[in-house]
Amino acid sequence: MPNFRLVLEYDGTDFAGWQAQRAGERTVQGALEAALAHVSGASVAVIGAGRTDAGVHAEGQVASVHCAMRLDAATLQRALNAVLPRDVAVREIAVAADAFHARRDALSKRYVYRIWNAPVRAPLRERTSLWVPVALDVAAMRAAARALVGTHDFASFAAAGSNARTTVRALETVALEQSGPELACAFEGPGFLRHMVRNLVGTLLEVGRGRRAPDSIADLLAARDRSLAGPTAPPHGLTLVHVRHGDFRPQSEGLEAKRVDAAEPHG
Amino acid sequence: MPNFRLVLEYDGTDFAGWQAQRAGERTVQGALEAALAHVSGASVAVIGAGRTDAGVHAEGQVASVHCAMRLDAATLQRALNAVLPRDVAVREIAVAADAFHARRDALSKRYVYRIWNAPVRAPLRERTSLWVPVALDVAAMRAAARALVGTHDFASFAAAGSNARTTVRALETVALEQSGPELACAFEGPGFLRHMVRNLVGTLLEVGRGRRAPDSIADLLAARDRSLAGPTAPPHGLTLVHVRHGDFRPQSEGLEAKRVDAAEPHG
Repeated sequence: MPNFRLVLEYDGTDFAGWQAQRAGERTVQGALEAALAHVSGASVAVIGAGRTDAGVHAEGQVASVHCAMRLDAATLQRALNAVLPRDVAVREIAVAADAFHARRDALSKRYVYRIWNAPVRAPLRERTSLWVPVALDVAAMRAAARALVGTHDFASFAAAGSNARTTVRALETVALEQSGPELACAFEGPGFLRHMVRNLVGTLLEVGRGRRAPDSIADLLAARDRSLAGPTAPPHGLTLVHVRHGDFRPQSEGLEAKRVDAAEPHG
Repeated sequence: MPNFRLVLEYDGTDFAGWQAQRAGERTVQGALEAALAHVSGASVAVIGAGRTDAGVHAEGQVASVHCAMRLDAATLQRALNAVLPRDVAVREIAVAADAFHARRDALSKRYVYRIWNAPVRAPLRERTSLWVPVALDVAAMRAAARALVGTHDFASFAAAGSNARTTVRALETVALEQSGPELACAFEGPGFLRHMVRNLVGTLLEVGRGRRAPDSIADLLAARDRSLAGPTAPPHGLTLVHVRHGDFRPQSEGLEAKRVDAAEPHG
């Protein structure tokens, strides 16, 4: 039974996240499993690299699924995109090694949190950016961001009630890029705690508003106390942009799919 | 009674266009008039520079409205943005000369039609781009576009049943810009017939697909026959980006509003 690796884009606005917290919720995983069941005739279980929350978007979520399938990868991709709802699409698909596991084998994930920092709301960016009308001190935010890079205990930024075995995580990159009123905050690392990116953004926004000193981050990390950090930034500004799987190489069939992707240099 | 000039951004997806074709429709003009009535306590009539169709977006629609108002322009802008629905916002506001008329005084308008030309749908661009999966010959489309520039009788591209006095229009710019799979088609000129941009795009797409020769445009213009041109492209790819009013200069109060705008170098 071939093991497929799928790269997904979705607008998270109308999804209750990657996977259901309660029965009957509309989830990305559910939409994908329904589409696969429709195309293959079999019931399958899809594994996602990142369990994005309700309202969080993806340009490059990766999923893996074992599924008996007579179609080649490129045909399967077209069939899935024809039956999937309009707010989710399979950008790439290829056959992976049998042992490939989208979550366990993810080497790093890249999230971008978009902030629209202008006095006036931007209706055309309403779904994918957080509007912050107060002028932000981006230099102070960058100074704070530098203190976050590295391997730390991120307990101060973990969702309350999280049952992760350890709250130590390695943050490889925190980069704040400005383009006019848009501020894109990129976070890259091998693993993230639940709500970690949104809690980091909520704290960086307090720094940007002058309510928290940039050099207070080291103490905040050392305190290991969620109540001392900033609030959780809302989900709609967040996008899972890319998941890296180091040794992933498409198998035989994947080469065919690769040709389809080549026309789509999506960033 | 001051005459206000407003610059508007809206996501046209959930609007029945700028103005109602039938009673009870949700329109941008209606939303703006309701917000002005709420803030001023008076009933007002707003004039839009371009009467965008249902589903068409705007980054820089311009409106003018005479309205008795005790608030200065900057305060009025904040009040309007607080009561307007999330899919429309006032980006700029200033007091204009009493005779200023957003439609009659418009020197030129710039529309951009966005096409997502890739084998796979892009859910995050679903609302603002037309997806065209077939690879387009953009060089051929550019050649056809060149034949459209200038003053022509655009009867072949006018909406059926249009009652414009003349179908002669001047098209100053047609520019096709590619950025990865995104193709942005910009049209600029002093005036457009109803559906003209969407009919031009529908025809350029036939050229891009190889179904129509680039050098057939001159004959198509000469024929003055709507049935010979391509279909009307769907509205959701179209955005009214900018309206130019040559001699517009904000009056006394406008200077205050200008300071608010300065922080928002929105493109």
